[in-house]
Amino acid sequence: MASSSPSSMSPPMIPMELHSLNREKLFNSLRDHLTSCARPLQGFVLLQGGEEQTRHCTDHLELFRQESYFAYLFGVEEPGFYGTIDIASGKSMLFIPRLPVDYAVWMGKIQPPSHFQEKYKVTQVLYTDEIKDVLLDHYHATGAPLLFLLHGLNTDSNKYSKLAEFQGIEKFQTDLNTLHPILTECRVIKSNLELALIQYANDISSEAHVEVMRKTKVGMKEYQLESMFLHHTYMYGGCRHCSYTCICATGDNSAVLHYGHAAAPNDKTLQEGDMALLDMGAEYHFYGSDITCSFPVNGRFTRDQSLLYTAVLDAHDAVISAMRPGVSWVDMHKLAERVILESLKKGNLLVGDVDKMMAERLGAVFMPHGLGHLLGIDTHDPGGYLKGAERPKEPGLSSLRTSRKLLKGMVITVEPGCYFIDALLLPALESPAVSEFFNRVEINRFRAFGGVRIESDVCVTSSGCVNMSKCPRKIEEIEAVMAGAPWPIEKTTFLSGNGQV
Amino acid sequence: MASSSPSSMSPPMIPMELHSLNREKLFNSLRDHLTSCARPLQGFVLLQGGEEQTRHCTDHLELFRQESYFAYLFGVEEPGFYGTIDIASGKSMLFIPRLPVDYAVWMGKIQPPSHFQEKYKVTQVLYTDEIKDVLLDHYHATGAPLLFLLHGLNTDSNKYSKLAEFQGIEKFQTDLNTLHPILTECRVIKSNLELALIQYANDISSEAHVEVMRKTKVGMKEYQLESMFLHHTYMYGGCRHCSYTCICATGDNSAVLHYGHAAAPNDKTLQEGDMALLDMGAEYHFYGSDITCSFPVNGRFTRDQSLLYTAVLDAHDAVISAMRPGVSWVDMHKLAERVILESLKKGNLLVGDVDKMMAERLGAVFMPHGLGHLLGIDTHDPGGYLKGAERPKEPGLSSLRTSRKLLKGMVITVEPGCYFIDALLLPALESPAVSEFFNRVEINRFRAFGGVRIESDVCVTSSGCVNMSKCPRKIEEIEAVMAGAPWPIEKTTFLSGNGQV
Ligand SMILES: [Mn+2]
Ligand SMILES: [Mn+2]
Repeated sequence: MASSSPSSMSPPMIPMELHSLNREKLFNSLRDHLTSCARPLQGFVLLQGGEEQTRHCTDHLELFRQESYFAYLFGVEEPGFYGTIDIASGKSMLFIPRLPVDYAVWMGKIQPPSHFQEKYKVTQVLYTDEIKDVLLDHYHATGAPLLFLLHGLNTDSNKYSKLAEFQGIEKFQTDLNTLHPILTECRVIKSNLELALIQYANDISSEAHVEVMRKTKVGMKEYQLESMFLHHTYMYGGCRHCSYTCICATGDNSAVLHYGHAAAPNDKTLQEGDMALLDMGAEYHFYGSDITCSFPVNGRFTRDQSLLYTAVLDAHDAVISAMRPGVSWVDMHKLAERVILESLKKGNLLVGDVDKMMAERLGAVFMPHGLGHLLGIDTHDPGGYLKGAERPKEPGLSSLRTSRKLLKGMVITVEPGCYFIDALLLPALESPAVSEFFNRVEINRFRAFGGVRIESDVCVTSSGCVNMSKCPRKIEEIEAVMAGAPWPIEKTTFLSGNGQV
Repeated sequence: MASSSPSSMSPPMIPMELHSLNREKLFNSLRDHLTSCARPLQGFVLLQGGEEQTRHCTDHLELFRQESYFAYLFGVEEPGFYGTIDIASGKSMLFIPRLPVDYAVWMGKIQPPSHFQEKYKVTQVLYTDEIKDVLLDHYHATGAPLLFLLHGLNTDSNKYSKLAEFQGIEKFQTDLNTLHPILTECRVIKSNLELALIQYANDISSEAHVEVMRKTKVGMKEYQLESMFLHHTYMYGGCRHCSYTCICATGDNSAVLHYGHAAAPNDKTLQEGDMALLDMGAEYHFYGSDITCSFPVNGRFTRDQSLLYTAVLDAHDAVISAMRPGVSWVDMHKLAERVILESLKKGNLLVGDVDKMMAERLGAVFMPHGLGHLLGIDTHDPGGYLKGAERPKEPGLSSLRTSRKLLKGMVITVEPGCYFIDALLLPALESPAVSEFFNRVEINRFRAFGGVRIESDVCVTSSGCVNMSKCPRKIEEIEAVMAGAPWPIEKTTFLSGNGQV
């Protein structure tokens, strides 16, 4: 490295109290719930941590990343653990695998339970082959002890969590319904210690986005932008994982919402005149960020690019100005749509009455995805739909990952976008309901444009919200930064003052 | 980027003939085998490609990397495909998933079969829901057509390949025994086109190793060395995947053979006086490299470091000098052990007769892993043990991933090492059989040393072998490069001349 580091950051210490506080929050919520149902305050929360995976039939080990609910409660980096919380006492226990002797030769020092007790600040650490006996021993009520197991639907993947399994589980009663909604709701509201990590992930990712903007040149490959981002966040930020596979879309690829996967692997060459849409976020100690910057690869916006970009930025800013506890996320989505439609009308791409466009859901043609999603240990953090809540059915709204009212302490992405996607635009141009709204000549001119997305991670406070993502957003800021101007990232501290946001 | 690129490379074009040649090789081998058993030349080889995976219950998509046998035959990057080869005609077919309409919105353009026929150069491309009907249609013999499915043991993971499944498979006869050993043996001997890719992966990885060596400084974190390697190979080499998780071990971590995984995550700070052991290799279009460099983090070898390093380098060089077709890999392992033991004796760490040390398997105390492994689309490429072959049982030799005789066209890693591992050394010091060989005072002095490994990827030629890894190896080369001297990487071309190595 050159003597002057390209980063002003360094990885912060990880406070293990974060996870004790998470456990305490669950303990209190669960006991409140049980009390309200007149159920006994007995039994154990039991979670099984993730296991290392190999690829197909080979011995190729995938780099392990902990299951998210387990990470939330215990902060454990290693595979093969179990964790419990005693509902009667609050006592927390970790169960670690008993490693074979040759682990010391191949994988590393075999640490005793005391090492993990010190590292993870739980009450006690034992071995996984002791779970049954230890829990039976710790149970002081009559009958078979009750285990609260994690079982519930992830409303983004539509998949159920895997049920914990261990030898001797048949000696216990199990409750599959109580834990999942309560633990999920704990995750929805972030503590200050959680916010500090999400802020750090945002700070290093914002800085990396700026670094990438500055180094982007016509003629590069999209994956080179990905490589620069990954390097900056790992080298200077200590972030080994990203929250998701980097989306480095340029030109018409920027209309592919989840570009960057193996079948569309960031491999196009950047062309003069292209916009770039870079959706990239680093993760630090499980907590993530999710940030999108859009900019012209040559550093100067054309008139058309300014028009589209400003439409999206105005939507982004309007939403952030309106966010506060109690506001409905569906309304925020519609607000973003309206601002975009009004801009497109002003820009002469659309004609007619915006209220009518809204009634016909024209916004979904240009922004088919939801406005944003909860963010935390998962990029699409759970809890977007409470049990029994129905998903909206209308175009655009049906893609929303939450329809909830905002609550203080939520972190949610604000990511309006405007795209020219043939698969949506061509049918709309033929649709009797909406075809009248299009200025076909202008729309046609934009058909190969791709799209623009601007995404920030926003924390809801008691009176409004805080944008945690510190990227250049205004056109003049982006052009200045790409021309070499400095970009300050002011640090936001969530840990000062009265400890509340 | 600075105006002068830190790389002399750029990603080569990928020749799809590579995979047609792989298919042709299998076709011929399989027909030869069937003919030799007087079986009819009828039926289809059918392989199911890999599927995209999500993490636990979430919608977090892991970046997909194709299953290796499927990659070998078809070179397909995308998930969800099937492939067949008609044993009667040699005709190859790919079956692609029929994607839902909204794939175009979220994931990218829905390409027609003709796109993939052009891209992958197979005879025909159809949809996965047509497999049954198309194969029944193409079968011109009597009875239910025969499918040769992939089923067999991976001798590194001790796991079996997953059997292909598709709707209507019950209409076919299946043969689970024939394909796996024949296809595996095809993979063992590399074609010139395969060698060219492995050479490229070696070239960009060697260059990245040199870059990391130059930038390594006391006070850095181990993961920063990993980040620099990943960045160099992706940014300049177009390598999105590595062959395996980077092992960036410094100080006593270098005695942990598979350091770098989630429970030992390259997070130590480099100290003055530490050796670094960096085992890192990039992959390009499925073909990998596997290279280890060991060097002092401050750029200057101490006397003790020179002693250990020279012991390992002499073993590495002795093996490469001896390698040629017909040589037994077990003998090569023993040769490496002998050279190391002799050096340790010369260096005054061991005393006594080296033949006796060999007879007592003392080498396995210092090098518990095998000398090397086949390398290709998998880091531990299959085919190390032919069906029925027994693994050696003695210490050290039991870790060998192959006990075969070398064949022209094999690529195998040569990776001798010498480590001070308490879990092995302390019992040995107490063992009546070997305790007499130790100079305890000297051994104790080295106990916190860690270890040294030197690993090159070596291709067996008709008369000897070629070392494909072009890293500084001599002590004076390493010290010069770390002090800033240039390092030339001469390119080896496998495609010139008569097309044979
Ligand atoms: Mn997002
Ligand atoms: Mn190796």
